[in-house]
Formats: sequence, C-alpha cells, structure tokens
Amino acid sequence: MQAQTVYGALHGFQTFSQLCQFNFKSKVIEVNMAPWTIIDQPRFSYRGLLIDTSRHYLPLPVIKNVIDSMTYAKLNVLHWHIVDTQSFPLEIPSYPKLWDGAYSTSERYTAADAAEIVSYAQKRGINVLAEIDVPGHALSWGVGYPSLWPSKDCQQPLDVSNEFTFKVIDGILSDFSKIFEFKFVHLGGDEVNTSCWTTTPRISRWLKKKGMNESQAYEYFVLRAQDIALSHGYEIVNWEETFVNFGKKLNPKTIVHNWLAVGLTQQVVASGLRCIVSNQEKWYLDHLDTTWEEFYLNEPLRNITNLNQQKLVIGGEVCMWGETIDASDIEQTIWPRAAAAAERLWTPYDKLAKNPRQVTGRLAHFRCLLNQRGVAAAPLAGFGRSSPRGPGSCYVQ
Amino acid sequence: MQAQTVYGALHGFQTFSQLCQFNFKSKVIEVNMAPWTIIDQPRFSYRGLLIDTSRHYLPLPVIKNVIDSMTYAKLNVLHWHIVDTQSFPLEIPSYPKLWDGAYSTSERYTAADAAEIVSYAQKRGINVLAEIDVPGHALSWGVGYPSLWPSKDCQQPLDVSNEFTFKVIDGILSDFSKIFEFKFVHLGGDEVNTSCWTTTPRISRWLKKKGMNESQAYEYFVLRAQDIALSHGYEIVNWEETFVNFGKKLNPKTIVHNWLAVGLTQQVVASGLRCIVSNQEKWYLDHLDTTWEEFYLNEPLRNITNLNQQKLVIGGEVCMWGETIDASDIEQTIWPRAAAAAERLWTPYDKLAKNPRQVTGRLAHFRCLLNQRGVAAAPLAGFGRSSPRGPGSCYVQ
Repeated sequence: MQAQTVYGALHGFQTFSQLCQFNFKSKVIEVNMAPWTIIDQPRFSYRGLLIDTSRHYLPLPVIKNVIDSMTYAKLNVLHWHIVDTQSFPLEIPSYPKLWDGAYSTSERYTAADAAEIVSYAQKRGINVLAEIDVPGHALSWGVGYPSLWPSKDCQQPLDVSNEFTFKVIDGILSDFSKIFEFKFVHLGGDEVNTSCWTTTPRISRWLKKKGMNESQAYEYFVLRAQDIALSHGYEIVNWEETFVNFGKKLNPKTIVHNWLAVGLTQQVVASGLRCIVSNQEKWYLDHLDTTWEEFYLNEPLRNITNLNQQKLVIGGEVCMWGETIDASDIEQTIWPRAAAAAERLWTPYDKLAKNPRQVTGRLAHFRCLLNQRGVAAAPLAGFGRSSPRGPGSCYVQ
Repeated sequence: MQAQTVYGALHGFQTFSQLCQFNFKSKVIEVNMAPWTIIDQPRFSYRGLLIDTSRHYLPLPVIKNVIDSMTYAKLNVLHWHIVDTQSFPLEIPSYPKLWDGAYSTSERYTAADAAEIVSYAQKRGINVLAEIDVPGHALSWGVGYPSLWPSKDCQQPLDVSNEFTFKVIDGILSDFSKIFEFKFVHLGGDEVNTSCWTTTPRISRWLKKKGMNESQAYEYFVLRAQDIALSHGYEIVNWEETFVNFGKKLNPKTIVHNWLAVGLTQQVVASGLRCIVSNQEKWYLDHLDTTWEEFYLNEPLRNITNLNQQKLVIGGEVCMWGETIDASDIEQTIWPRAAAAAERLWTPYDKLAKNPRQVTGRLAHFRCLLNQRGVAAAPLAGFGRSSPRGPGSCYVQ
C-alpha cells in the first residue's frame, strides 16, 4: 500500500478490511474477487459528524465508540457541539465556574478528558472541531457567572454590553487552543433572538451610547468573537445566519456552515467564502423520518457548476443533535444513515449511484460489518418510510 | 410483604425498588417519603410484549435481556412470534428439517434453547406464549418440507389439501407442549390470501371434492388447527381475522387477538369470547411515529360498559414486530414506550392519569431506572412527534 499520509494508509486499510469477508461455511476469511488494484482519494476533505453533549450528556466511552465507528465510514471530523443552553459540561480552567452549568457533577468532562478525546480521535485520523455557540445558545454559561446574562429574568443571548463576556470567550478559546489542535473552531452564531438586549435597560442604554441597533450589536458580537478566535490561531466556522445577516463583513477565513436554506451554499461560494453543507431536511440524524436514501442523495455541489466555486465547498456534515437521543440510542440513530452520507462525501461524483436502490446491498452489508465490529447500527429499514430493506439477516447477504 | 403467589411478591419488590432512589449528593440509597403502605394488584391478568424472531433473528442473550426488562414494568407474557414467512429458526424434533428454513445455521434456537427461555422467563414471573401463524404466515416451513407449499411457484398459505400439513402442525404442537408450559398457544390465522389454493390444480380439485370454497377452506384449516392444539391441552389465541370471518364457529376457548379494528374488542366480548388488545395504531412498537402518550392513552375497555364483558378482556399486548428492528435496536425501540402501556395494564382505571403530562415525570424517571439496570431505554422524546421531554439528565429529575 502506498499513501501520502498515515491517514491515507489508514483509509486504505479500511477499504481492504471491507473487501474481506468471513465465509460462514468454510470458516475462513476471504478477499472477494482478489487481486485488486485500487487508487482512491476522498472527494471532499471535510467529512463530519456532529455530536451534542449539551442536550444530553454523553459519557467518554460513548464518544470514543462514536469515533471508532466514524473511521469505518472514513468520516474525518467530529464536530463537538460541547455546550449550549441546556448544560455546560466542559471544564474551562480559565473560568472554573463555567461547568457549574453542567447537569450534575457526574455529567462533566475535565480538560484532560477533552484532551483524551482529541488524542483518541487524532490517532484514528479524525479532527475534533470544538464549538461554542455564541451569543444565542449559551444560557448555561450564566449558571456559574450570572453577569453573562442580560438579567436573571432574561438569560440569553450573552450580554453584548459586558466586557466580561468577551474576556470569558477569550479565556475559553485560549484554553481550547491548548486542547483542540484542529485549525478550525466553530463559533455558532445561529438563532439569535436579541429581545433581551433591547428590554434590559443597561444593555439598551449601551446600545444607544454605541449608536447600534440590535442587529448591529449581533454583528458586533460575532465579529468580535471571530477576532478573538483568530488571535488564538484559529480559522472560524459559523452557522449560516451570520452569512445571511452580514456576510460581507465576516472574516475571509470564515467557513459558513449551511443548515437551513438549501440554496444557500451557492450564495456562500459565489461570495468567495468556504462552506460546509448540513441542510437539516437531509442530513440531520435527529430527523428520524429522513430515510437513508435521502441522506444518500443529498448532493453538496447541487447547482454549483463553477469549478473554483465547487472547491470552496470543503465538505459536509451529518448532525446528531442531542435533544432526542442519548447514550442509549446514539449509535442506532447515527448508523446506518450516516454511512449513506459518508459515501457521497468520499466517492467521486461519477461513481456515485444515481438510484439508491443500487446502494441497498452494500449499505446493508456495511451495517452488518458495523455490527460485527461492535457498533449497534440499526437495520436499514429502521427509520424513515421508503427504505426497501425489511426482514433479513447479516449471515445471508 | 404479603402476597398470594411468589409472583405477587416479585411485583411487590419491583415496586419497592422503584421507591428507592440513589441520592447522588449523600451517596446513599433513600426510600422516598417512607413509611409506605401499599395494597396493589394488576388490573389485567395478561400484560404482554410480542417479539418476532422470524423477520430478524434475536440471539438468546437479547431475548433474556428483554425478559429482564419486562419484569421492571410488570409485564408478564412474552408472546414469542417464533416463525413466519421469512425464517423458521426453531428446532422441531418431530420434523427436523423445519429449521432448514432458518436464515442460517448461526441463526437458530435448539429445543433446549427454547426451554431455557421458558425457564428463564418463568423464574421472573413471565409466561411464554409461543406462536405458529397458520396458514398464512408459514412460507419458511416449506424450505425443509416443500410439500407444505401449494407449489414451488406459489408458496403460501400452507397446503390445506395435504394431510401432511396437519401432521406437521400436530408434531410442532406436540413438541411445543413439552417446552411451552403456558396454558395458551397462539395459532395466528391472520392475513390469509387463498389465491394459491384456487390456482393450484391439485388443491382446486380437492376443494371441489370437499364442496368448499376458499373461505370455507380457510375456516376448515383454522378450526382443525384449533382442534390439534386442544388435543395437546392448550387453549387458543387467534388473530382477529378468524373472528371476523367465522367468529361463531371458533372454539369457545379461543381468545381473539385484536390488532386491526379499534372497535372489534366490543364485538368479541359481546359474543362471549375473550380478547387481547394490540390495536396497531396505538400498541405496535414498530410504528416509530406512535408517541408514548398514545401508548399510554390506549384504553382496552373503551366503550365496554357491561361488567361481565369487561372481564372477557383479559389484557393487552404491545408488539415489537421484527421487520424494522433487530438485536441492535430492539431495547431502544421497546422502551420507554412499552412502559406507558404497562402502566395502563397494571393500574386501576380510576388511578390512571387523564392527561399524559401527569405521567411524563415518572416515565422519565422509570426510563432512567431502566438505564441504571442496563436496559438501553431511549429518551422519552426519541420517537413520535408530541413527546414533551427533550433535553435532560437522569441525574436531575
């Protein structure tokens, strides 16, 4: 095997292992139709899976199992949506009260735990994209530091008028830079409802003094958070609302993370920014009605014909939001559907199946392979409505 | 504790264990608001869960885990839909080629395995209701004995014209009677499409000779199978189509298993037969869109006011059909929704919540208890649309 990087070699071995099959009759491992000559490379450099440890805590071994399973499908970015409104499970040494916002002391990650995850992932060819989702999804920050809230009765977004807010962001990103070595950090920026800013007298006075309306304040917040991230050596990922609201002012190093509008990718790359595709109707794993066929057919470059613009779509990401799942069912909800998206992100466009029926057999085989490797991937018919595979057996393919 | 049977005592201990809670602060197990005086008994004597090992094989340890989990919710009948069209995984000593219809030799239960399941269940207060679903859901029988098929090209229902068919049923039920000690056996009888009988010349001639049309032949088949079961000491459960088609001719010991028509229970008990309720819109666990609230609100005695008729509804059963699930996700799909039905089957009518919102807290608590006991029950928001519980923690209730 020849590969330019150790990760290329790792992917090569994954492919090789998938060509091997245990023959239950002869009790021998066979390589199907050998010899093979395979020249292979990924279509997209960013092939992500989001996990969310704020809505439900995920124990360390569960995260490691998810990482293991990602390698089998050649996914290479674990987007860790660590904190959100509901809980703040991560230790931040610079601001040690932040994880007072965890659900409980049993549901927290030390900084050392996070470093362990990063190292575990890195050994498997996976980068960890850490996220803090500011200013809108950060209520839990105020449990330890209530001055981050506009007021006790109006607890988000983070107080834009308070210098302490940006000090805390700086402290978090400073601590992140010692743990999360991936070149990108995710700063969120979605779903910001600024009404607490206008209704809190202190903040409203500050806005007037600065001559800003609330959307200008939102922009000010996001851009200032970007500057802090840049100062710690990161490039930035932001959810698409930031692009929609003040696209041209985003730092050129910004990657826009598409999740709402299907056509947005075109606008992002036309503006010269990079894009990650996660449109919710197709690649949100918590949407249990979305079939694996829909996951498979979601084309990140749809309607983008300009080659330079195509290159700005660095990849895509399936999102396992945590509202409806936890350690009990995360594997079954991610797999096998994430594998359908993973094939689209890896395989050259002209080799992709036009009709997902052509994929059914190998996807069913792959989910059995996951089962054999200890991943509790569900049958293909498990979610959604149109899945053609019903009854069956992993011993009869 | 006082109880009339060892199973009553077992249920009492289950209740006691649910009153105990581990205090994460003091690290001590506490009994909430003790002392307690509890006088309790089940509302319905039959509180079932169906599993289906024909559409996907379930390894023995998985079945045992399901049995363990049933005891926590005081369910007391494991309805084992062992064989169906897709596979015949059980060894039948009298007809040793029948399990040639298994998916593979790795996906079979010996007769000793089945006895082990029965014994394991019995120690936990659970009866095992074995099912053969004749004549309509039995294609896999013909893999080992092709003469059971009308023809090679038309493989079900079982050949009504062939005495061998009834010999095989007799052999199976004879073997069953040595293993499955529950007083009931399930003979299926649903979804019978008789077209292979009329299009196969041999059978068509036989029908003419006997002066039967195909619906009379269906009736003949079901009643003859009932007689065989009775001869082995069983009372019979049959799916509702048998009642709809020839209700008055069913043996009086028949229990009609409702799965289709919501109002059917009333007709069954008005006719003097007993009934088990499993209507598919409310109590089919493979319907992933059905919320736990719908499971909770499904009242077996709806519109039945006559007390003697009420007594004929011996209980209900939630059904975990196997088309869409297997060992990878069966626990997560059964729980927590089965627990909502279990409360309705156990609790006196006047103590049941009118609004499921009153149940949310204790059901969330119960699903956490299942997690603590090693059952991978999913969060309440996991399936269906209206579940109010989203993000959360088992450590903060």
